[in-house]
Amino acid sequence: MNIHQLGEFGLIDRIRQRLRVDSHVIRGIGDDTAVLPYTRGKYLLFTTDMLGEDIHFTRRMPAKAVGHKALACSISDIAAMGGLPSIALVSIGLPKHLPVCYVDELYQGMHRLAKQFGVSIVGGDTIKSDKLIINVALLGEVEKKYLVTRDKAKAGDWIFVTGPLGGSFLSGRHLTFTPAVAQARFLVRNFKPHAMIDISDGLAGDLNHILKASRAGVRLWEGQIPKNPGCTLQQVLSNGEDFELLFTLAALKAKKLLQWQQKTRQWFFYPIGQITANRKQLVRAKAFTHF
Amino acid sequence: MNIHQLGEFGLIDRIRQRLRVDSHVIRGIGDDTAVLPYTRGKYLLFTTDMLGEDIHFTRRMPAKAVGHKALACSISDIAAMGGLPSIALVSIGLPKHLPVCYVDELYQGMHRLAKQFGVSIVGGDTIKSDKLIINVALLGEVEKKYLVTRDKAKAGDWIFVTGPLGGSFLSGRHLTFTPAVAQARFLVRNFKPHAMIDISDGLAGDLNHILKASRAGVRLWEGQIPKNPGCTLQQVLSNGEDFELLFTLAALKAKKLLQWQQKTRQWFFYPIGQITANRKQLVRAKAFTHF
Repeated sequence: MNIHQLGEFGLIDRIRQRLRVDSHVIRGIGDDTAVLPYTRGKYLLFTTDMLGEDIHFTRRMPAKAVGHKALACSISDIAAMGGLPSIALVSIGLPKHLPVCYVDELYQGMHRLAKQFGVSIVGGDTIKSDKLIINVALLGEVEKKYLVTRDKAKAGDWIFVTGPLGGSFLSGRHLTFTPAVAQARFLVRNFKPHAMIDISDGLAGDLNHILKASRAGVRLWEGQIPKNPGCTLQQVLSNGEDFELLFTLAALKAKKLLQWQQKTRQWFFYPIGQITANRKQLVRAKAFTHF
Repeated sequence: MNIHQLGEFGLIDRIRQRLRVDSHVIRGIGDDTAVLPYTRGKYLLFTTDMLGEDIHFTRRMPAKAVGHKALACSISDIAAMGGLPSIALVSIGLPKHLPVCYVDELYQGMHRLAKQFGVSIVGGDTIKSDKLIINVALLGEVEKKYLVTRDKAKAGDWIFVTGPLGGSFLSGRHLTFTPAVAQARFLVRNFKPHAMIDISDGLAGDLNHILKASRAGVRLWEGQIPKNPGCTLQQVLSNGEDFELLFTLAALKAKKLLQWQQKTRQWFFYPIGQITANRKQLVRAKAFTHF
């Protein structure tokens, strides 16, 4: 059997089964980031994302945007845990005939985003490669009381997303999105989400990750799901790389959040369904896969 | 200008110039690992290494050894700071026709080494790639009093290495080496090295890194440099990926170390020269480059 036949999620399951983590690791594989002991009041968050040419971007796309995306994906993972990003290392595989100005622009895109989010890029590694490869390893931190994982969604919770979904590749939004750190921090400070994830594999795939981890089911209000212009429900469910956050709130908190939005006339959060106790109610849609 | 014309070290300099790090980062790019605030008595160490097929290994080499090497390189970086490795994330780019058993064996090699050094591999990322690419991001920790950097070598220091050098690629030792964590911990606990680095670019290249950072020169005792069987001095100076440690000790400590070795009849450390005040005395040899 080869990698193609096994598929992305089969492969991840296979790798996961073999991991044995020390008891002092709070949370290992199976969430947006690893969660590690840190200070008395905080956890350390640790995540990594690898982006490959012709998979996550092409050489025709602006180098600044590619650099932006490489870092933004990892910042989005930190946001999904309720945390703030802090320190990054960037490994990069470079074709030998790549113009140096391309690399300059790539780093410009990364640095601009890093500055915006208070991230220090403190080093990394460079190797020669046939195709451009970028790996970001990112640390972050979160107050223990604010940590949000995937596995605490409860029957009756309302499900929200932070923005319209679908068509991220076609529109180019996967290259320019702003990681939803501000929204996540607002939520953990004021509304105590039960579960949160960033939507990288498509709404269906990532919602199912929450349902599986939380041993719960779902009722989606399909008409309520915010869609990007021209996107069908199917695209919204299965297109990847939206990088919006998906989270669940206890019903009472959900109503308070909607009231707050009505009062302030700011619409950052869209209710799209409810968590149920029926574990069989998964979202039936082909999940986006990078393989 | 393209990457090939700029060269590996030109590229690293260019990237380094553009980095701006927060004041709370103890040490950023320019050492074996980044050094970050952690607990009252310890620093957090953070490093990353990317390995590419046909650069650092080939598909004909045993998968277990490739996995071993991928993690061992990063553990060696932690050792060079005097620290202990703790938590790793592994990103991997996989060709779609790669047999799944290859990936299994790759992880077996990594896990065996991880267990040996108390490292937890807590997650990572997988993508599709034309050639096999492995990126390890590794955290470690070091007691503040034991941290060793590259820039504190002093005129009069003796220079040591932890083992014979040269021919690592030809002999296959670059795939099987044991990172010198035990030696490094013995040294920081008992002999307070002034400067330390792991030899990945060849003795000349890495010794010059210490000299540049410490603004010092060198006198090498060429006849004393331990060589692997069949290696010339030139190969010892410029072959890459030895992964032995290179360190400097105050003359008094150096003599104590030699006495200790004589008394215990254990020869772990080889004196190869002395640090001088004359900054112009660099090691003249073509440094190994991965580009």
